[in-house]
Amino acid sequence: MTQGLEGVVAASTRLSHVDGEAGQLILAGYAVEDLAPHATFEEVAYLFLHGRLPEPAQLVAFMRDLASRRVLPPVALEVLREAAAAKTAVIDALRMATALLSLGRKEDPLEDSMTAIASFPTIVGCYWRLLNGEKPVEIRSDLSEAAHYLHQLFDAVPTPERARALETYLNTICDHGLNASTFAARVIISTRSDVISAITGAVGALKGPLHGGAPGPALDMVFEIGTPERAEAFIRAKLDRGERIMGFGHRVYRVRDPRADVLAHAAERFFSSDGDKRLYALARSVETTALRLLREHKPDRRLDTNVEFYTALLLHGIGLPTQLFTPTFAVGRVLGWSAHCLEQLAEGKLIRPQSVYVGPKGLRYDRAPAGVASSESGTSRR
Amino acid sequence: MTQGLEGVVAASTRLSHVDGEAGQLILAGYAVEDLAPHATFEEVAYLFLHGRLPEPAQLVAFMRDLASRRVLPPVALEVLREAAAAKTAVIDALRMATALLSLGRKEDPLEDSMTAIASFPTIVGCYWRLLNGEKPVEIRSDLSEAAHYLHQLFDAVPTPERARALETYLNTICDHGLNASTFAARVIISTRSDVISAITGAVGALKGPLHGGAPGPALDMVFEIGTPERAEAFIRAKLDRGERIMGFGHRVYRVRDPRADVLAHAAERFFSSDGDKRLYALARSVETTALRLLREHKPDRRLDTNVEFYTALLLHGIGLPTQLFTPTFAVGRVLGWSAHCLEQLAEGKLIRPQSVYVGPKGLRYDRAPAGVASSESGTSRR
Repeated sequence: MTQGLEGVVAASTRLSHVDGEAGQLILAGYAVEDLAPHATFEEVAYLFLHGRLPEPAQLVAFMRDLASRRVLPPVALEVLREAAAAKTAVIDALRMATALLSLGRKEDPLEDSMTAIASFPTIVGCYWRLLNGEKPVEIRSDLSEAAHYLHQLFDAVPTPERARALETYLNTICDHGLNASTFAARVIISTRSDVISAITGAVGALKGPLHGGAPGPALDMVFEIGTPERAEAFIRAKLDRGERIMGFGHRVYRVRDPRADVLAHAAERFFSSDGDKRLYALARSVETTALRLLREHKPDRRLDTNVEFYTALLLHGIGLPTQLFTPTFAVGRVLGWSAHCLEQLAEGKLIRPQSVYVGPKGLRYDRAPAGVASSESGTSRR
Repeated sequence: MTQGLEGVVAASTRLSHVDGEAGQLILAGYAVEDLAPHATFEEVAYLFLHGRLPEPAQLVAFMRDLASRRVLPPVALEVLREAAAAKTAVIDALRMATALLSLGRKEDPLEDSMTAIASFPTIVGCYWRLLNGEKPVEIRSDLSEAAHYLHQLFDAVPTPERARALETYLNTICDHGLNASTFAARVIISTRSDVISAITGAVGALKGPLHGGAPGPALDMVFEIGTPERAEAFIRAKLDRGERIMGFGHRVYRVRDPRADVLAHAAERFFSSDGDKRLYALARSVETTALRLLREHKPDRRLDTNVEFYTALLLHGIGLPTQLFTPTFAVGRVLGWSAHCLEQLAEGKLIRPQSVYVGPKGLRYDRAPAGVASSESGTSRR
């Protein structure tokens, strides 16, 4: 048995290529560092769903179509209200509302994909407000996807720099090979189920802490350290206790994760125009210290700053609280999930591996025929 | 690449063993033909969740616990009403309501499993009535799971024979190795997500027509034939046109599927006491004719009556319309999904295979920096 299917190839794809040895990530033919900082999220969405970048007129039509799909079914709002009343985690509320996106719609793989991509910012933004006792804000169709997400969250049109920083993040993380949530989506749709069912399953998988790419705790250390001069002592003590330094190293990439570079530049650009410059200086100083001490501590091992570190810095910078990091990841990754669903449908092969049985054999059922049940429940049982 | 992971072992399990060569199915140590016709569904549920059959006192407590979890969150009823108004398919409504089962509950793998197992009959039963313009019936805690499902559907306590026939079916199909829905559940929970998320994904996978075990069209031919004397001419014409005879043959089993035997006996027992005896006689006569003609037509190939044929006969016999066949399959299979989730959590390894990239490389993004977007949308974009 191949534990966890590690190294087993389960699909061929034209969507992304992760070359961990070379430190390269290709998104539908483009290097992540070429595409993510320059293209709009809508352009990348079109590229993923249609296999090539749009011509200007196609992009306009595509953006209009997306913008027309932002309104949630009314009962989804009811569900989000109930979820907020029960203090449900954002990612769970996202799963509940995603499951409802097919309500009243005729199934169509491409249209369902568009609906999911357009609805995620509404769901997360609206739910976040409800969770904080605020009223949802009205849907606007005149904003880009990234700007609309921030508007849904904060009831204010973001500065171009802020929207662009978020957009660069969403582009950067929109797909990454067969990660567990994307694989879950492909397994579900491989039965020829529908895209909304597959994406609902993918949200469930993304929730798990073992899913890569959840940038929760990477910035916590920076906050804990507080000022640059405390960094060295703090990190040295952590290393001496044998603790892991969050934000450094990646399971797949042997060299520097190219997404980290893209997000580092995006953070630098954003913080130079907007955001908390003191925090940025602190984070970079903690990073420099951590890298120096890690090299001192483990000279044989190459440990670079990973994508979670810069993600946390960037998302925090544009005003997103930590609880929104994973849901915001979903707002970008829904693109990859959708495109993988379309690709899997086009290939059309059921994904159905084998299990090996390690349990007992030859046990015999020797109870009285359902006797306890009938005497206790007093109802229709033999 | 192994297309569809065929033959790749992705998990070890103590839950079920499908031996297609020998025509054997082991359910947690017991042969399906020993366990399914004799044990109650609650006993099998306990066996699957706890690894052994319950002692009498344990069974009583387990049944009480299950029965206490049948009430749905109020907003789930709202969702089912809206879904019914939109004529949503039963399996989609089941996915929508399943996604809500964690509402207001603290996450716990075993408790979430119990909640899902207890809620599925309520969801399907209640939704079926709403879809048909009828009022949901009150939840009863004094009925077995199988009897409660039929009561939810038809607002009448079923005869013991009817409940027992359904129970035998649910036991028979409660687990079957790593089928696509079970695998989807394991992929999702392998990230250390929660059981409700995993089961929601599994419902989505079960929906797809490539998922094995959906017994829809197997009985259609019997209805079309109508009377025994028309069987031979009808089937012969079908074979001459090269059409497939639904209800015969199975992808996995080379010899007779042991579940077919269990369900054939259950059908025989049920129809001898209850149900439409004329239909039963017709079905058996169609079966005999089909097998004879298939052997004549393909003498080298062994084609037995499969589990779908008897499932359709049995479920139709106890009064379930065809649209409820797949949802009823889910009412039983949720047991396997739950138990596989608990097992996967105990093992704790992320399921994350590889993909191979077959798309273009080295494309260059050469658009004006998001120009169209800013001129067309008139908003915050650079």
